[in-house]
Amino acid sequence: MVATFEPKTDYKVVGTRPIRHDGYDKVTGRAIYGGDMKLPGLIWGVMVRSPHAHANIKSIDTSAAEAMDGVFAVITGADMPKAPSKLVDLGEGNINFKWASNKLMADDKALYRGHPVAAIAATDRYLAEEAARKVVVEYEVLDSVTNVVDALKPDAPIILPDLVGDDLGEDVTNTNMAAHVRHEFGDVEGAFASAAHTIEREYNMQMVHQGYIEPHNATATWDEEDRIKIWTSTQGAFPARTQIAGILQVDVSRVKVTPMEIGGGFGGKIPVYLEPIAAILAKKSQRPVKMVMERTAVFETTGPTPGARMVIKLGADANGKLTVATSDIWFEAGANPGAFIGPAAMCIYAPYEIPNTRIDGWDVLVNKPKVAPYRAPGSPQVAFAMESAVDELCEEAGWDSFKFRVDNASKEGTRRGDGVLFSKIGMEEVLEAVKECDHWNSPLGDAPEGKVRGRGIANGYWFNIGLKSSANLAVNADGTVQLTEGSTDIGGSRTSMAMHVAEVLGIGAHDVRPTVGDTESVGYTDVTGGSRTTYATGYACWLAANNLVDVLKERVAVLWDIKPDDVDFNDGAFSSKAEAAKSIDFKELAGKLDDLGGPATSTGTVDLESAGDGFGMHIADIEIDLATGKSDIIRYTALQDVGTAIHPSYVEGQLQGGAVQGIGWALNEEYFMQDDGKMANSSFLDYRMPTSLDLPSIETVLVEVPNPLHPYGVRGVGEVPICPPVAAIANAIKDAIGTRLYSTPMNAGSILEALK
Amino acid sequence: MVATFEPKTDYKVVGTRPIRHDGYDKVTGRAIYGGDMKLPGLIWGVMVRSPHAHANIKSIDTSAAEAMDGVFAVITGADMPKAPSKLVDLGEGNINFKWASNKLMADDKALYRGHPVAAIAATDRYLAEEAARKVVVEYEVLDSVTNVVDALKPDAPIILPDLVGDDLGEDVTNTNMAAHVRHEFGDVEGAFASAAHTIEREYNMQMVHQGYIEPHNATATWDEEDRIKIWTSTQGAFPARTQIAGILQVDVSRVKVTPMEIGGGFGGKIPVYLEPIAAILAKKSQRPVKMVMERTAVFETTGPTPGARMVIKLGADANGKLTVATSDIWFEAGANPGAFIGPAAMCIYAPYEIPNTRIDGWDVLVNKPKVAPYRAPGSPQVAFAMESAVDELCEEAGWDSFKFRVDNASKEGTRRGDGVLFSKIGMEEVLEAVKECDHWNSPLGDAPEGKVRGRGIANGYWFNIGLKSSANLAVNADGTVQLTEGSTDIGGSRTSMAMHVAEVLGIGAHDVRPTVGDTESVGYTDVTGGSRTTYATGYACWLAANNLVDVLKERVAVLWDIKPDDVDFNDGAFSSKAEAAKSIDFKELAGKLDDLGGPATSTGTVDLESAGDGFGMHIADIEIDLATGKSDIIRYTALQDVGTAIHPSYVEGQLQGGAVQGIGWALNEEYFMQDDGKMANSSFLDYRMPTSLDLPSIETVLVEVPNPLHPYGVRGVGEVPICPPVAAIANAIKDAIGTRLYSTPMNAGSILEALK
Repeated sequence: MVATFEPKTDYKVVGTRPIRHDGYDKVTGRAIYGGDMKLPGLIWGVMVRSPHAHANIKSIDTSAAEAMDGVFAVITGADMPKAPSKLVDLGEGNINFKWASNKLMADDKALYRGHPVAAIAATDRYLAEEAARKVVVEYEVLDSVTNVVDALKPDAPIILPDLVGDDLGEDVTNTNMAAHVRHEFGDVEGAFASAAHTIEREYNMQMVHQGYIEPHNATATWDEEDRIKIWTSTQGAFPARTQIAGILQVDVSRVKVTPMEIGGGFGGKIPVYLEPIAAILAKKSQRPVKMVMERTAVFETTGPTPGARMVIKLGADANGKLTVATSDIWFEAGANPGAFIGPAAMCIYAPYEIPNTRIDGWDVLVNKPKVAPYRAPGSPQVAFAMESAVDELCEEAGWDSFKFRVDNASKEGTRRGDGVLFSKIGMEEVLEAVKECDHWNSPLGDAPEGKVRGRGIANGYWFNIGLKSSANLAVNADGTVQLTEGSTDIGGSRTSMAMHVAEVLGIGAHDVRPTVGDTESVGYTDVTGGSRTTYATGYACWLAANNLVDVLKERVAVLWDIKPDDVDFNDGAFSSKAEAAKSIDFKELAGKLDDLGGPATSTGTVDLESAGDGFGMHIADIEIDLATGKSDIIRYTALQDVGTAIHPSYVEGQLQGGAVQGIGWALNEEYFMQDDGKMANSSFLDYRMPTSLDLPSIETVLVEVPNPLHPYGVRGVGEVPICPPVAAIANAIKDAIGTRLYSTPMNAGSILEALK
Repeated sequence: MVATFEPKTDYKVVGTRPIRHDGYDKVTGRAIYGGDMKLPGLIWGVMVRSPHAHANIKSIDTSAAEAMDGVFAVITGADMPKAPSKLVDLGEGNINFKWASNKLMADDKALYRGHPVAAIAATDRYLAEEAARKVVVEYEVLDSVTNVVDALKPDAPIILPDLVGDDLGEDVTNTNMAAHVRHEFGDVEGAFASAAHTIEREYNMQMVHQGYIEPHNATATWDEEDRIKIWTSTQGAFPARTQIAGILQVDVSRVKVTPMEIGGGFGGKIPVYLEPIAAILAKKSQRPVKMVMERTAVFETTGPTPGARMVIKLGADANGKLTVATSDIWFEAGANPGAFIGPAAMCIYAPYEIPNTRIDGWDVLVNKPKVAPYRAPGSPQVAFAMESAVDELCEEAGWDSFKFRVDNASKEGTRRGDGVLFSKIGMEEVLEAVKECDHWNSPLGDAPEGKVRGRGIANGYWFNIGLKSSANLAVNADGTVQLTEGSTDIGGSRTSMAMHVAEVLGIGAHDVRPTVGDTESVGYTDVTGGSRTTYATGYACWLAANNLVDVLKERVAVLWDIKPDDVDFNDGAFSSKAEAAKSIDFKELAGKLDDLGGPATSTGTVDLESAGDGFGMHIADIEIDLATGKSDIIRYTALQDVGTAIHPSYVEGQLQGGAVQGIGWALNEEYFMQDDGKMANSSFLDYRMPTSLDLPSIETVLVEVPNPLHPYGVRGVGEVPICPPVAAIANAIKDAIGTRLYSTPMNAGSILEALK
């Protein structure tokens, strides 16, 4: 039974912008990140990594490393527990313990450049690195494949010989195809036959990285009764625990994960990389072991989002109604099966009402790092294809592309590409907001001499997950409340959680002191990801606060010698139902609890289906130098249905951050692969992410359509804004130079090529 | 309304002896104590301490210290917030913020040797110490007093000129007498007039120290919005927070205290010493500051128990019935008012039914460190006097002293020295156990040539406090349970708490994973002290576990599609009231919670009056070398009503530990003061505590009289066993050499003196 809520408007705390509780710690450098971790007797772990993208490991000689003074442990694939093939959903992405174990430490084959083949623990990092250089690995180098086209050729090198692929339910072997899924609704062939206008195009997107500033890190101890403690920067201490326990093949309660502050994740810090290795080194060395990844390894071995090849075909009737769409989508999985074809299928057609649709998706192994969740994983890729194709269809038919999007917009009851029917969504309200916003109503303006300008728009969609969250509360005598919740705070969620509690209790946001718990001090809580955190953990906080009100009613009943049922609570004050003048506010009551039964505490947990479907549209204005192809985003607006914005600054920040990342995908970012499977640009110098100097201030318009599935109307926010930018910029470039680009990145070189 | 419980016997977990959850961490050195604390940018704080026991501070010149490279902050008394005179009960002991502030940092007078007069924060400890030596303090040395007799002389130097003493409710000034209390019941004068036998004697006890291995320590940060974080070894994170906030004059919620593992406390780690100073240094230096006390300062400036002068007078009728008792007790307070005359009055006559009693108690300032709680504070002192006097009365009248104790034993309804009437107590059961125990029924045996032997007995009593505790629970998918509770674990309480939860849920003690929370992750919990922890926090755990059962009944109801009220829970299994065969045990249910409503969590809090009155008797056999006076304890048995022993090993450990500490008081320990007020033996080499090599294995007899005020019958345990030893040994020495000693320590020198 799913609870639904009526929209509220008379908020006291929701919608305000208090300074975040962790703000001072963050800006002064006082906050403790994983890399700051110190323990008595701590030693360092480093990886020995494969220099080859694909190679058989003939032998590993660790004897010289082991003989070094100060080296405590050396491990190889032989030291990894044999984890069975078991798939566990992580909310955003999933994990198969067998493949995950193999991803973390090679067995008999190196599957991607940087694949760990051994690990060393030694007194310090430099000694460990020196020992790593003394590990002698004999490789038989194999041909590698780094794109989906080559990977599916009949003579392609097979990356995982024991992979059993799933081709529409049929097992296939000796293949790099991990999965092929299909969703089909309506009469696709018939609809194309009767369509007035059709187009078919291919779009390609390069693999890109989340680019978090903080590299992965882990510190581990493993004690004599096989209890493992892990300190790490993670997007979810509990899902990290699930992964670590599964890879190490111990019960989840043997593993305690303490989440440190996190320097960015964007999905990429949902999977674990170093944690199980640090734990095994700790077991073997009987010492605490710390590992911090170097930047090159972050790029080469962690968390990119899939590169994609996408062929899309659209059909519309003569009146500008979209009648049919099909798409063939090949996603790079990396060296183990990926997980994002599913979301891609859910997202590709979501902004549109289309009666007849088909999607075929393939998850294809390549000798690149295993893909990881990256903000709306799968959706920006398909949005690039779909939103480019929609513009092209309109160009062919001579239609206004905004009006086309309005005329074909999704609404309550629209069927998503995977068959799900939408309940109340805010797509139409977003389009209304576009019509009214300053940017849309302002002309592009004239370009300076030698430059041209263009404007593009695109839709974006993410489904926003719900899942499990927990929160505990305790009242302090000074009228403040401690909140312990299980969600790692990446984007200010401590404050949003505190605001949920404060709103219920009628106190200030800063009267609630939020703490992110470890896996032994709060109930199970899923990842900070999937745009679920403010929604689901906020909901748990709201429940806990309401449960606290019930506890406090009992205390008031003692104070006034009446029954708890005769106590009312409104606007932060308890009153007597029988005697309206009898009233005590939360703060005053807090100071009296000592005499009324002792500490007042409460708890709240949720397990929710969905944080509500999220829609947005972005408007991008670009200016292009005709001589060099260099482009500048000169104005950019992100509009989105955000449900109720608990803390509007952080909601705006999500929209801005997502837009900026999407702009990076569009214009600059890519895994630039050499023929031998090595990434040529694995540093922040060569892997060019946009900085504040590259961009205008991103304008935002928060469209607040309260989500009936949350007491305050919260809807998932964080992922939608990375979906439109690539397509919006592609459409803007087309508008500016008259030529369309079909591949990312659309950098100066590509634009110059197009101009020729 | 106080809940009472019927005795239970069919326990599955209670009464077993699982390995403690923190055992491996403790024995391997992996546990993190306060001294292990590290933070990025950490600097060190040290104190500048007064070399004089009593001196006016004419001036402090910190300029040379401040000018040193690497010195970040120098503070003096002028930097201390002016805390008002406000007395707050800490459960065991209390704190007056004004005096506590002055104790931590001298204002215009140094009141005891080692009194801090300034503090320095510098890049490292050695540099800070060097800077400390450059602080120039001009003192005007004053006469000092270090015992209660001198302190109360008319011409005694006045230690606190602004002290207003309380003499039976009258204010007195210009005095070292902080308080004089009296309790009087019955017709004392008449009873003495009609007594067949009377004795009157004076006993003196030296100040002794708790002697915990780990010195005091504190690490502090103070941020830009005046939020203070403290990491410290403490017996109670929340009471530490209360003290720190009071001394620093900020709201309690501005202070977060994280309790580190603690290397012994015995009451001495209830007061704070370094924490507020570290915080002020952190504020001034804008860096995290760590302080660790040197051993000399631990002795000279922290936590001793009061030295005492006690004059006691007893009267009995011809039949061996104790009819009257009076006592005059002077306790050394140290340089600020103490808190232990009250407990002394509650304890002195407690083992006896005496119709007519009076006690006068004085709390007297001396130029020694302010006293702190030390295991049953006040009770071992008065037990020395009372239990010696009882033996002397029996010697005079020719009575058997054990029979006398039996004939006059307290029982339900007996009036304590402060007027409280006992409810159900286990005194008589303890005496029965003595009669039956092996030690009591075994002869002393012949002493070797040149030695003599003696046996002594004595009663002990402690009232055991209740107070506030909190616990949170969360279920893991593998059928284990996380427990977060607020009690610092000194003696194995994590495991006792886990056992409470396990007993309710029908799972193993190791299926519950206990964590000690900080002040922002669990509800308010009072000190680990007062023999309250297993009782009160255990009770909170029991409540939380029962609340969890209620939550889980709702989940079972979902699983079986019945009403929660139709679900039973017995012996670890949920069953359907309607269908008895329908059953699911806790572990199986835990694995299914994901589909039944998400995480299962609960909370429990208590605020309790008392952990039940505790009584014990000890039997000590001593052997004395007539040539040297050296004594050896050759057999020792501690018998005690412990209520229900949750984990018998830790209960036995409490009895053994208390006995050993009491033996130290009796035979060796003392603050040996020079005439100038300096302690002459402020190191573990000179301050001689008993080690395992000095003692036989202490035998224990657990008398289990379930406490009706706890669901499992737990009674306070930890303090009673330090009360009897001094008197038991005094009585044994008298038995051995025929001469009684009236002062501690009864070391070889004293005994040799007595033998002459």
